[in-house]
Amino acid sequence: MLKKLILKTDRKVDFVDISEKIKNVVRESKVEKGTVLIFIPHTTAAVTINENADIDVQKDIVKEINKIVPFEDNYNHIEGNSAAHIKASLLGNEEIVIIENNNLVLGTWQGIYFCEFDGPRTRKFYIKILEG
Amino acid sequence: MLKKLILKTDRKVDFVDISEKIKNVVRESKVEKGTVLIFIPHTTAAVTINENADIDVQKDIVKEINKIVPFEDNYNHIEGNSAAHIKASLLGNEEIVIIENNNLVLGTWQGIYFCEFDGPRTRKFYIKILEG
Amino acid sequence: MLKKLILKTDRKVDFVDISEKIKNVVRESKVEKGTVLIFIPHTTAAVTINENADIDVQKDIVKEINKIVPFEDNYNHIEGNSAAHIKASLLGNEEIVIIENNNLVLGTWQGIYFCEFDGPRTRKFYIKILEG
Repeated sequence: MLKKLILKTDRKVDFVDISEKIKNVVRESKVEKGTVLIFIPHTTAAVTINENADIDVQKDIVKEINKIVPFEDNYNHIEGNSAAHIKASLLGNEEIVIIENNNLVLGTWQGIYFCEFDGPRTRKFYIKILEG
Repeated sequence: MLKKLILKTDRKVDFVDISEKIKNVVRESKVEKGTVLIFIPHTTAAVTINENADIDVQKDIVKEINKIVPFEDNYNHIEGNSAAHIKASLLGNEEIVIIENNNLVLGTWQGIYFCEFDGPRTRKFYIKILEG
Repeated sequence: MLKKLILKTDRKVDFVDISEKIKNVVRESKVEKGTVLIFIPHTTAAVTINENADIDVQKDIVKEINKIVPFEDNYNHIEGNSAAHIKASLLGNEEIVIIENNNLVLGTWQGIYFCEFDGPRTRKFYIKILEG
């Protein structure tokens, strides 16, 4: 099963919790056991799994990644968003989560985040469910 | 097939070779062809594949990642372990390895490492085998 | 279906577009729906998905990653290529792409890149197709 979802981001760099959206797609699929692949078809966005309790964790991740890969650093790419491309490769554009009992197998504090690095924009991502 | 394994880490930042544990689970499964997913259900730990020969490689990785993401950097998260969360997202919480002839298809120098970034702790990880 | 491909890299740090090679393997497999796993069996190379239009993006990624992880930084590993090992873990040694209608589901600007961090060398990578 393959599904495409649409998402609006609000800031230049923005982490959006997409865990519930993915859980809903898994629930609708009625697949009891398997895996779900989340794939981001953009080159200035990523997906990561991290803490869903204290929002300060997301803020710290964003702040530190912006420091590790500065917005301006004599980049050559004329669109001016090279930092976003680099961050996308560092965090990666896909995640796989295990499905058991028609639900995601995640740790207590884990949420799945769409990572916007060159927003705000309308974005999309794919959800592919593999039974087995 | 889904299996949960327990692991004890010994240091604050610690790389633990889990290759043999995963090989054993694959062997017991009797699956000849497919893939095995290693999934870390924590937000301050990760999994990576890197050199298994010279232990200095792991030490250099740990030292340099601790430099790229310093333990203290005016983080907001009150638990004081933001650096560990950031490292977890940079290295990622999953790996997939190919199974062929009931064995892992790894390069000569590749080992699979559980990456502790906020230890020492008792941790767990999931192993999901997909036939095909 | 499992396939091993050979690749020659030309520089110490080098991004090589392998999208067409992967598309060809998918086409030959005649698999209509599923996923394709690209796995790098080396510890000083990686695979990433990023922009395929302006070559300056790749150059900026390479330049910035070389800056984040310097070639020399009092590393202990006697082979002198610790920086390459660290970059490999940061970018990751695998990607999964969705197959639909016997073709890759990639964004408009996405290409799949073999990332050489300790070349030039003759390298290999695995392509595993999972139907479903």
